[in-house]
Amino acid sequence: MNQPAVEPLGSTELLGSTPRTRLRRIPENAVTDRAALHAVLDAGLVAHVAVTDNSGPNGSAQPYILPVAYARDGERVLFHGSTGSRLFRGLAEGAPTCLTVTLLDGLVVARSAFESSMNYRGAMVLGSCRMVPEGEKEAALEIITEHLMPGRWKEVRAPKRKELAATVVLSLPLTEASVKIAEGDPTDDPDDLDAPVWAGVVPLHEAYCDPMPSANLAPGIDVPDYIRDWRR
Amino acid sequence: MNQPAVEPLGSTELLGSTPRTRLRRIPENAVTDRAALHAVLDAGLVAHVAVTDNSGPNGSAQPYILPVAYARDGERVLFHGSTGSRLFRGLAEGAPTCLTVTLLDGLVVARSAFESSMNYRGAMVLGSCRMVPEGEKEAALEIITEHLMPGRWKEVRAPKRKELAATVVLSLPLTEASVKIAEGDPTDDPDDLDAPVWAGVVPLHEAYCDPMPSANLAPGIDVPDYIRDWRR
Repeated sequence: MNQPAVEPLGSTELLGSTPRTRLRRIPENAVTDRAALHAVLDAGLVAHVAVTDNSGPNGSAQPYILPVAYARDGERVLFHGSTGSRLFRGLAEGAPTCLTVTLLDGLVVARSAFESSMNYRGAMVLGSCRMVPEGEKEAALEIITEHLMPGRWKEVRAPKRKELAATVVLSLPLTEASVKIAEGDPTDDPDDLDAPVWAGVVPLHEAYCDPMPSANLAPGIDVPDYIRDWRR
Repeated sequence: MNQPAVEPLGSTELLGSTPRTRLRRIPENAVTDRAALHAVLDAGLVAHVAVTDNSGPNGSAQPYILPVAYARDGERVLFHGSTGSRLFRGLAEGAPTCLTVTLLDGLVVARSAFESSMNYRGAMVLGSCRMVPEGEKEAALEIITEHLMPGRWKEVRAPKRKELAATVVLSLPLTEASVKIAEGDPTDDPDDLDAPVWAGVVPLHEAYCDPMPSANLAPGIDVPDYIRDWRR
């Protein structure tokens, strides 16, 4: 499970170098370092995955977006869904997809509305998914669980056979991807620099609050340290 | 600008009632209240929007996902992009789209990996966008800016003609939409309730940090109160 499905490009090679992933808008925000792609994917909890069917007007292509829990595993992304999901079946059959992770870092408050924006880190992966074979499913689910809830896998029971059977695990290779990072101060129109208005960044921060025990938790079971250690 | 583009369904009618938006997975998480749809859209800062072209293998449909700043305006969603963006042009031409807002509320830590999940509020809107006409663009941008940065619009200068010309504003009606809300304690397999492991929810909270002035901000310009009041 820990073998990359594809060879890493290496940190000096260009990501986003295909015509489909080249950044056309604000290319200075493009990041060409594969480590940056990994860092964005590793920092997220939820990805948005697109799948297209023919349910648009007159049978045209209609995209859908699904939020999924995921994890990066070397040079691929793993995520899972239900065998009963029509859209997941489309993905499992290899329909072209796009997976996006967006991490919002702050509001960029410029001296004009036009230059105001958001700081964020975003990754986009294009390609086709493959179903993780039956014999590798449990290990893939461990990787996803440990990304979201580090330390949890070894404390809970192993998946039951029927649970594994109800779960589709998909992998998407990181062969065609782009990363975009917008950070720092607003870039104002030079004409606006003398305007007597505040300008700057309002950072946005995501954090875990105190764990809340389930109503049916037996008395005397404390929150384990590994859960207290979870940080965003 | 404040007139709904479509008649509200009313809070008692079913959202997600078309075959394309009916919730097939975990239907008990479906919410049938239009006010719930509005609340999810009003609570988000970023939406993910899908657009499809023919750049897939052998000219097949390839979806792309774009993160966009947006605002709800009555019974439609407004968002903007650059006139130079190829994907935005596709949206402006009315290509079928999907707009999704996902708000992550916490990790649901069940007694098994299979039942572990996330609490979240999610909205999905299907349909086709329309370009906001030139004469309504500025008002639409005000709505988007005020959603993200309440109080800001009246403090900054009006958009310049060339800025408006460089901006495409799109509207997507809330005619076909679904809302999904997952909340509360984990639902464990009854066989697992006696397992001696902690179970519960680890809430996730997003907050603004102290505003950081731009490096080129003139001395003596304090953070205005309306910015200090921004809350997630």
